[in-house]
Amino acid sequence: MIYLDNAATSWPKPDSVAKAVYDCIVNKGANPGRSGYKMAIEAGRIVLECREALSDFFGIDDPMRVIFASNATDALNMAIKGLLRPGQHAVTSSMEHNSVARPLKKLEHIGVETSFVTADGSGLVSPDDIEKAIRPNTAVIILTMASNVTGTIQPYREVGQIAKKHGIPFLLDAAQGAGHIPIDVNRDNVDILAFPGHKGLLGPQGTGGLYIREGIELDTIVEGGTGSRSDLITQPDILPDRYESGTLNTPGIAGLKAGIDYINSVGIEKIREYEINLCSMIINGLKGIEGVQVYGLKDPEGHAGIVSFNIGDMNSTEISYVLDSEFDIEVRAGLHCSGIAHKTIGTFKQGTVRVSPGPFTTEEEVDRLIEAVRWIAKL
Amino acid sequence: MIYLDNAATSWPKPDSVAKAVYDCIVNKGANPGRSGYKMAIEAGRIVLECREALSDFFGIDDPMRVIFASNATDALNMAIKGLLRPGQHAVTSSMEHNSVARPLKKLEHIGVETSFVTADGSGLVSPDDIEKAIRPNTAVIILTMASNVTGTIQPYREVGQIAKKHGIPFLLDAAQGAGHIPIDVNRDNVDILAFPGHKGLLGPQGTGGLYIREGIELDTIVEGGTGSRSDLITQPDILPDRYESGTLNTPGIAGLKAGIDYINSVGIEKIREYEINLCSMIINGLKGIEGVQVYGLKDPEGHAGIVSFNIGDMNSTEISYVLDSEFDIEVRAGLHCSGIAHKTIGTFKQGTVRVSPGPFTTEEEVDRLIEAVRWIAKL
Repeated sequence: MIYLDNAATSWPKPDSVAKAVYDCIVNKGANPGRSGYKMAIEAGRIVLECREALSDFFGIDDPMRVIFASNATDALNMAIKGLLRPGQHAVTSSMEHNSVARPLKKLEHIGVETSFVTADGSGLVSPDDIEKAIRPNTAVIILTMASNVTGTIQPYREVGQIAKKHGIPFLLDAAQGAGHIPIDVNRDNVDILAFPGHKGLLGPQGTGGLYIREGIELDTIVEGGTGSRSDLITQPDILPDRYESGTLNTPGIAGLKAGIDYINSVGIEKIREYEINLCSMIINGLKGIEGVQVYGLKDPEGHAGIVSFNIGDMNSTEISYVLDSEFDIEVRAGLHCSGIAHKTIGTFKQGTVRVSPGPFTTEEEVDRLIEAVRWIAKL
Repeated sequence: MIYLDNAATSWPKPDSVAKAVYDCIVNKGANPGRSGYKMAIEAGRIVLECREALSDFFGIDDPMRVIFASNATDALNMAIKGLLRPGQHAVTSSMEHNSVARPLKKLEHIGVETSFVTADGSGLVSPDDIEKAIRPNTAVIILTMASNVTGTIQPYREVGQIAKKHGIPFLLDAAQGAGHIPIDVNRDNVDILAFPGHKGLLGPQGTGGLYIREGIELDTIVEGGTGSRSDLITQPDILPDRYESGTLNTPGIAGLKAGIDYINSVGIEKIREYEINLCSMIINGLKGIEGVQVYGLKDPEGHAGIVSFNIGDMNSTEISYVLDSEFDIEVRAGLHCSGIAHKTIGTFKQGTVRVSPGPFTTEEEVDRLIEAVRWIAKL
């Protein structure tokens, strides 16, 4: 079986990931941060080590400002709803995932204003357009690091600079960037970073996180037991506890640490280089097939490990069905939880077939994909 | 090492739990409910099978009304904030965990009224007092199934009947009851059930869930990609998708299914009987030691696998420290994320030492605990 849906969740994971999860459940299964006994301290250490690994990975100064979430959607909701108040305005793009678009649409009901800046046909958002959309009441700029539909890497560094210039917090949705492209929250002017643990970071499903720059206060969307200040009937202010109510997914966090360790052992630049090579093969291979349209930027370096295509006016779901049933190739088709991005690139009705290789994808597997698409295109 | 903190998280888990998690990561690692290819369907089947197992376990008619959450706190926040609107009133008790108390206190800021009905010194809440607290604008009655401090099992069935009589939704916090005591949402008149996956249900950390009776509509606290109706920029209405945005913790859910299967293979009544026996040994053993005070009901059948105690006016944390360092016995001390419960039973300053055995705790381990406490009490 050839798995090419790493943008949904990465697979396979490094061997060390499932092993770390297993070991945590079997040998370090206490609740972290709640007690002082030995196994609870061990569990707490697992959580702290992953927090530190994430901080190192993203250039974050204080690991206590890394919050664990159950996925990037959870982290994005924490950020968006924790930040925006009625009467305030958010600038974002037409390439966002529903995990940004739907919370924003929800907030419109309580009087939050939104501007979805339209990207061009390749899915690229213009920093100038973002800047033009800023109003006196703009309280956040939210941008996807790379489109989950086309893979288009956005000019997030430029947008970060614009946000800084205007003194507006910049929230980067790194769902498709984290683990693919090096992020440094200080260099990139990212004030709030939302990321999944189970995609580019190679951790297990059920993990994700949020970085919140010092000075930014988010209201909470979930309160509860934090293991700290149990005497208070209100949510404590200290971080990360304030945003981490309830028992953490310690085994998942152990696995996430193993995923990050793997990336560091190989080197993210090397993974990125390999990914660009695979995307280049996919783009060039697909473009050579009559009737195939490839979306997004022409340059493979503009793709974050994702290439979307269609064959003539064939239904994208049908193509993915044939790829699976006839060729044992697993890709995703349809709208990929991002209707507005498809409206932007003109594929709202047809959807696209999305190919997303991972660090364990081989060149031979890509060749087999191209051959399969060539076969389908002749049908 | 003797682990007696199962009320925080159960440990050890049945062998099948970590194995199911491992197998899911290694062999069924796709994103469930997002695609139609084979591994995605397998992942979807894991999720559906666990939903069905939970439905059978709790007497729920429609598995699609079981929502996965990352822990009971997450589920409780979904329920409390999804239900209550400004001007409405909630009845609850003084024995609630901070996962109920803190969200309610938060909602007071937007004009939600609350009544925390005071329990007696053993932690027992009177159904009459609950009924007396009902107002014309009462929109929910929330009760912990069993106190996480004293283990006191509340008269939740009677409260369920009262709620039904008054036509008010009844939300049961089964954090300390699920997997310990049989629950049938219809028989017990539970309209909304919040439960952790990693305590009595013996699943891994990072799991939990919420049952919502048909006819009850909760607003969402998190929106995002659901893999369904991606064309809509608003959250879809269909269940469970409406309340499950973002990638689910599929490996955790696979482990949770294994935990439930284990309970079913042994029989929950048998587990309950064994737990009562252990609690009886703990209560009687502790009561025989001079200077030791045991909290909660006298009858071990009134305890949900939890016994709290103190030795004279010794700091509870000090006792747990000695138990760990000198006897390798792991228990939790302090306020257990429930300050109001300690105020109720008069231990707000001292906290309590909480002992919570699990299905794998042996009678010999309980004997060793009693001997250790006897030794400490002589200090």
